[in-house]
Amino acid sequence: MSGIAYLGPPGSYSEIAALVWGDAATPLLPLATMPAVVTAVETGAARHGVLPIENVLEGGVTTTLDLLIHETALRISGETVVPVRHVLVARAGMQLPQVRVLYGHPQSLGQCRRFIERVLPGVATVASLSNSTAPVEALADERGAAAISTERAAVLAGATVIARDIQDRAENVTRFIRLSHTDHPPTGDDKTSLCFGFSERDRPGILVDALLEFSSVGLNITRLESRPSKDVLGGYIFLVDLNGHRTDAPVAAALERVRCRVGLLKIFGSYPCWHASANAAPAATTRAGGTAAADTP
Amino acid sequence: MSGIAYLGPPGSYSEIAALVWGDAATPLLPLATMPAVVTAVETGAARHGVLPIENVLEGGVTTTLDLLIHETALRISGETVVPVRHVLVARAGMQLPQVRVLYGHPQSLGQCRRFIERVLPGVATVASLSNSTAPVEALADERGAAAISTERAAVLAGATVIARDIQDRAENVTRFIRLSHTDHPPTGDDKTSLCFGFSERDRPGILVDALLEFSSVGLNITRLESRPSKDVLGGYIFLVDLNGHRTDAPVAAALERVRCRVGLLKIFGSYPCWHASANAAPAATTRAGGTAAADTP
Repeated sequence: MSGIAYLGPPGSYSEIAALVWGDAATPLLPLATMPAVVTAVETGAARHGVLPIENVLEGGVTTTLDLLIHETALRISGETVVPVRHVLVARAGMQLPQVRVLYGHPQSLGQCRRFIERVLPGVATVASLSNSTAPVEALADERGAAAISTERAAVLAGATVIARDIQDRAENVTRFIRLSHTDHPPTGDDKTSLCFGFSERDRPGILVDALLEFSSVGLNITRLESRPSKDVLGGYIFLVDLNGHRTDAPVAAALERVRCRVGLLKIFGSYPCWHASANAAPAATTRAGGTAAADTP
Repeated sequence: MSGIAYLGPPGSYSEIAALVWGDAATPLLPLATMPAVVTAVETGAARHGVLPIENVLEGGVTTTLDLLIHETALRISGETVVPVRHVLVARAGMQLPQVRVLYGHPQSLGQCRRFIERVLPGVATVASLSNSTAPVEALADERGAAAISTERAAVLAGATVIARDIQDRAENVTRFIRLSHTDHPPTGDDKTSLCFGFSERDRPGILVDALLEFSSVGLNITRLESRPSKDVLGGYIFLVDLNGHRTDAPVAAALERVRCRVGLLKIFGSYPCWHASANAAPAATTRAGGTAAADTP
């Protein structure tokens, strides 16, 4: 029970996130689906699981949110933010004018549209299943093929990088969470994630009353998202992130007041943020705001 | 400029929604993408456009939400709720024991999992691109093929219905909006949709203060959803539905107070709900709460 499960294949952005928490003693376990990552941790096949939860352009990752709300009792024990940095890769020696075909995940092709229009006009594009398979497919294509990929997936595939940071928007980042059996002890700079819902629907102000329990005592709500409760149209579960640890006195008191107001309250956990670059190796990662807590509880 | 554009192909749930607003003088125009539906109305190629905005199990349709927030000045002029009702279809004369292969959209196959496990155990499933293409593919397959489809798509394909309401959950519905150049005059039973965002980020309580402007005067917020603002992680646009027409005095006053608090306020429109069955013909539709307003402003 020492590994870190993540959404594979190797070379994915999820692996880059998992590497933030990895070291020689914690092997990485690429799995095929997000529910598989959760089950691996629940059953002890892995110690932690890493899942994407939010992209700055696309929004919340609904599969992850619904797993947290409806399916698992695991806690969030950490988060990290990974920049989306696409590279153009091909076999060694190939130059831009020789590119005739471009492989890439449809979302990645869309995120590099300006680069493709300007630098590779008229090149045929082929949809790949992932950022990790694209360079493998390009290397197998004899027609003069390149691929959009991550730097790490390019290295794993044995491809050479032709151009870096080819995405249209530099500010594109994805936030990942680490799931474990317990959340994280206080570090002094933590966030608490939770969700709540109402058994009584449609009463004016019931949502606002619950949020006021946080904001009226100065607790900063950094994120508010809703998901369907999946029973009736118009029934919602609200997901809230706020600054502070659930064991901090003001947070604990607000949570108790909210618990009295709502039909459902589920606390996903309190945790700090780990900072990392897109190509972080474990040794290069640094803790943000970490003070006294152990790496894992 | 008399047609109603919708997300095709014919037989889709979007067409069932569009039929709620169609009559002999308003031809239906199936288009390939959601942005195409918006552009058709903006350019006058269609009078109205119909888009899915929310499914009770899957949540908000992010493409539609982002079109409303970022891309179009069209208004919402109506909404309708369509039950998701899957049927099992095949060529005429085929019975359940003869089914060897089952075609269906992956989401539809997932929504009928219990039926498939119990009634068609061991049958091979094949992914189709849409609920409308599945029966066409099944009819072309000589191995004893059936398909999951809508009743209407089955009729259009010339297939015969073997079983109805095969979805696991009876309460699965999708909400559709009608987009037009103007919203709808007051009917006495209307909803108003809007979004707002903040230029000043992270101040505790700023979201709650804005919501309080509605709830403190008894306006019922029936839906609250967030989408990324697409500039920085942690920047959000909040989408709100509330009961009442934007020209009602309490709503108008609250909107003005909110406008002073937020950096961005966009009112998508005020509109009534049209009720319809899954297989509604235009003549069978009735207006919900309609009083004096014309069908289209």
